[in-house]
Amino acid sequence: PEKLVAKVVGVATMANKLARDDPRRVVHSFKVGLAITLVSLFYYFQPLYKSFGVSAMWAVMTVVVVFEFTVGATLGKGFNRAMATLIAGGLGVGAHHLANLCGKIGEPVLIGLFVYIFAAASTFMRFFPKIKARYDYGFLIFILTFSFISISGYRADEILELAHKRLTTIAIGGSVSLLINSLIFPVWAGEELHNSIALNMEKLGLFLEGFGAKYLKTTEDETNNSKDGNNKSSFQGYKSVLNSKNVEENMANFARWEPGHGKFRYHHPWNQYIKLGGLIRQCAYRIDALNAFCKPDIQKPQKFQEEIREACTKISLESSKTLKKLGSCIRATTYPSSSVNAHIVSSKAAVKSLTCFLTSSSSIYTTQNSDELLQIIPIATIASLLIDIVDCTEKIAECTYD
Amino acid sequence: PEKLVAKVVGVATMANKLARDDPRRVVHSFKVGLAITLVSLFYYFQPLYKSFGVSAMWAVMTVVVVFEFTVGATLGKGFNRAMATLIAGGLGVGAHHLANLCGKIGEPVLIGLFVYIFAAASTFMRFFPKIKARYDYGFLIFILTFSFISISGYRADEILELAHKRLTTIAIGGSVSLLINSLIFPVWAGEELHNSIALNMEKLGLFLEGFGAKYLKTTEDETNNSKDGNNKSSFQGYKSVLNSKNVEENMANFARWEPGHGKFRYHHPWNQYIKLGGLIRQCAYRIDALNAFCKPDIQKPQKFQEEIREACTKISLESSKTLKKLGSCIRATTYPSSSVNAHIVSSKAAVKSLTCFLTSSSSIYTTQNSDELLQIIPIATIASLLIDIVDCTEKIAECTYD
Repeated sequence: PEKLVAKVVGVATMANKLARDDPRRVVHSFKVGLAITLVSLFYYFQPLYKSFGVSAMWAVMTVVVVFEFTVGATLGKGFNRAMATLIAGGLGVGAHHLANLCGKIGEPVLIGLFVYIFAAASTFMRFFPKIKARYDYGFLIFILTFSFISISGYRADEILELAHKRLTTIAIGGSVSLLINSLIFPVWAGEELHNSIALNMEKLGLFLEGFGAKYLKTTEDETNNSKDGNNKSSFQGYKSVLNSKNVEENMANFARWEPGHGKFRYHHPWNQYIKLGGLIRQCAYRIDALNAFCKPDIQKPQKFQEEIREACTKISLESSKTLKKLGSCIRATTYPSSSVNAHIVSSKAAVKSLTCFLTSSSSIYTTQNSDELLQIIPIATIASLLIDIVDCTEKIAECTYD
Repeated sequence: PEKLVAKVVGVATMANKLARDDPRRVVHSFKVGLAITLVSLFYYFQPLYKSFGVSAMWAVMTVVVVFEFTVGATLGKGFNRAMATLIAGGLGVGAHHLANLCGKIGEPVLIGLFVYIFAAASTFMRFFPKIKARYDYGFLIFILTFSFISISGYRADEILELAHKRLTTIAIGGSVSLLINSLIFPVWAGEELHNSIALNMEKLGLFLEGFGAKYLKTTEDETNNSKDGNNKSSFQGYKSVLNSKNVEENMANFARWEPGHGKFRYHHPWNQYIKLGGLIRQCAYRIDALNAFCKPDIQKPQKFQEEIREACTKISLESSKTLKKLGSCIRATTYPSSSVNAHIVSSKAAVKSLTCFLTSSSSIYTTQNSDELLQIIPIATIASLLIDIVDCTEKIAECTYD
């Protein structure tokens, strides 16, 4: 019993956390409940029940299956379902008619053959990457409806009525879902994508800021270790960016279905977002490599290294500012201000001064002891990764301007 | 019309490519066709039709929805569907019974309330990450069946019979799918995961081999550029590893449903595979950073750099061999042989000799001209990334031993 209590408490904490992290989840759940209850009214009202009969069930089914978190996904699924039912219904009626002409023996054979061919063909079509991304559900429903209509037609001769009923109930279910989903606190996939891109930029910026402020600093301020807990999370934040590709592509696919809304009054360049996401991930890979060098046993800086460190800190902080500014510009959908450009310029200047310093300092360097070169390597690596990151941020900035 | 022809040809080429890349896709399509046609027999045979009636449709539906590419996914979905229908059916009957006791007015209100609460609650449950990964489909079917049964119960009084019919038809559809899927050329998710892990290792190995052989070599053999086409693809191969997380996690989730089979007679440590996949990806991130330095305008090596290059080539080639050997060991499910260990040892030796060389050579170095230091930086970065990769391969090897 104690274990059970612990488990219940655990689930409750988890539920609480999920709800707090994104209150729209709770709203979404209530919206689904509302839509299903509304559609159920078709069963309660006598006259409607008479005209639709058991088919009214399809309306409930449509709501349950089609009602997704974002408006775009709901629209896409509803459209897929409606179109697939329409096309499959037409083809099913045609196949049934054709089979009817072939007499008692030919009929089941022909229908079996049709079902076999259509099912195999559309299953294969689902492997096409483009179809998988946007019409996967449609093809599923197509197979379902086609086999259902052409087979059931073999029994009852009221297929046309059946097809008509199915379409009507699906239309009712679909439009109820769509209305509730898009009118009561709508969640737009386009906006989600937009925000996630901005958030990812800010996460990378946060890492670079922390990197510049903590790991590259001289060890004098180690008393500040009490803030470690906070910093830890900002250092791990970028990791979610590494695997963001899938989520972003899904969001972009959903967003394509959405009409203009809110900030995106006109058709929006989702491909641009995908590209931007790719660049951000590229930058995140560099940061992951950088993170590998952040071991706590970093040596205290010799004088020579200290100067490199200073330049590195500057690069890191300026790149961080660039990314953060770009992120907040995207969030606000404003054209990036000139201050972003200023940060890019100053980070490039820092890179230049670092390389200059390295060029000129080889003479200074020779005066020091011989295993210095070995000690430079990590910091040199960090430096060139940072230079690479500056490149990345520049590309990201260019991409943002478009 | 010409555009249409071009489009048709394009689609045909694409289909051909998809089929050639993985012939199991074609087999899968035919399996789906077979399963659906088989289940359709329920409609053809008079006596069966009499006992099941329109419910036989549920069997077709189950096949279409449940029949997935891998055995694990089919099993998981079938299990979800059956369990959800059973539980929701029981609860639905209970809810209907309870509502019946409340009189004419209370009945619809109570049923509406039940549907609302259950729909909202299970929609929210689907946000739990663990439930989303394994039982998402089950919760969908739960909402569907529960609302369907408790609502339709309000109309007809034969719910128990309805629930019974649904369960039987689902069981028939599910078992037909399962039998066909697992007996005719089965595709096991566990094996897919296993092979994809091995393939990813080999891809990384291939990159490092190409990197060692091409970019680190002195420019004397530039006549071999005719092989560029082949090399290009081996250099891009690792990119698919970067975003492999999602696929691997799905496969592992499916694999959990699968019973012991073939090479995996006993329960298999899928978590180990996930961990291994994570390490491989980490290594791939380093390689991506490395790839950024592979610009064609790499300078001709000075004498000093040449020696570093030699060590780097060695590290790169040895790591490549380690990864490739580990990959083929995994593929064959044999315990990694001692030769893998030998490669790790020799790559570590190369790292050591590189660091030794760097330590001792600073005196040599001082004799050269002053902007040498700047030129070392890229090669030093490459070196330390490679050292990091050696670390990664070692971890991968350790993980493979478990």
